[in-house]
Amino acid sequence: MAYIDLQNDLPGIRGPMAFRPETAKPLNELAEILLHQQHDSLSCGEREMIGAYVSSLNDCFFCQNVHGAMAGHYFECDASLIDSIKHDYQSAPISDKLKALLAIAGSVQKGGQYVTPRQVEHAKKMDATDRDIHDTVLIAAAFCMFNRYVDGLNTWAPQDPQVYADRAAMRAADGYANLNAFK
Amino acid sequence: MAYIDLQNDLPGIRGPMAFRPETAKPLNELAEILLHQQHDSLSCGEREMIGAYVSSLNDCFFCQNVHGAMAGHYFECDASLIDSIKHDYQSAPISDKLKALLAIAGSVQKGGQYVTPRQVEHAKKMDATDRDIHDTVLIAAAFCMFNRYVDGLNTWAPQDPQVYADRAAMRAADGYANLNAFK
Repeated sequence: MAYIDLQNDLPGIRGPMAFRPETAKPLNELAEILLHQQHDSLSCGEREMIGAYVSSLNDCFFCQNVHGAMAGHYFECDASLIDSIKHDYQSAPISDKLKALLAIAGSVQKGGQYVTPRQVEHAKKMDATDRDIHDTVLIAAAFCMFNRYVDGLNTWAPQDPQVYADRAAMRAADGYANLNAFK
Repeated sequence: MAYIDLQNDLPGIRGPMAFRPETAKPLNELAEILLHQQHDSLSCGEREMIGAYVSSLNDCFFCQNVHGAMAGHYFECDASLIDSIKHDYQSAPISDKLKALLAIAGSVQKGGQYVTPRQVEHAKKMDATDRDIHDTVLIAAAFCMFNRYVDGLNTWAPQDPQVYADRAAMRAADGYANLNAFK
């Protein structure tokens, strides 16, 4: 049960977003730009995967399931592949570029100063652009916010993974910007 | 020197914000609502202090100086009081309510699951409203993002504390929403 009276029964981040729609608006706009808008060099699936990975490092059940399901939707793969990327991305069948960006994201999760010049140089060698690296750092940083918002208020989360899988296609179609927190 | 070519020489978060104005917009809107809009129960100074405290725990030089100076401006105190709050808020001459909220913010900085029911109950006893607690959690979470964004890209920061003090009054007057990242 949430630590404050959210005045609704919505799961995860949707509860506090409905409680405080003023802050929900820029939070959803940020998610829309970072995760959903069409991008040239870093796909929506890769962006969602970075968010799911950081959420797993932060042990945030709601976010890692929402965004793991989103990555699975875009990658057209089942949940076991997403789990394998979260647990050991170096051995997973993903591009060397995404591996390099997940390494940067993992450092950001610990703290900004954990990112090393070597990690960034390696990502550039794997064809990551400056904007890919910028967006990776900001996605990882943003999930350090989203995860803390969800768990710091002790929101509840559906336990059945199928619930998240069922919603992913709709969210991929609709995006985040027009997310009506009350639905 | 920043890890990517930001195409500008702006300090701290203003560098990557100018590099990527699309994401700067919701980031600044979030800061405006959480830190600058007129609030009934939690003052701008208290909100900036929560941000400065979390930034100090994250060892983010730029953010703790920007927002420490902002708190000092609103509190009409010198930098030594802000430093004493950052280092030992329990002994500082601040309200019991702000102490209770700083305790919650300190837990959020470690991770959302570190917030305890006891911390929240204590804050309520010290007259914190549900919205105060919500905003404290989100401010602390947001600074875990801002700090990682600033340091994860290895941005530079002015070393002279007076630079931050000199800008605080202007920022307090203008707010964050219309912050032109290129200025």
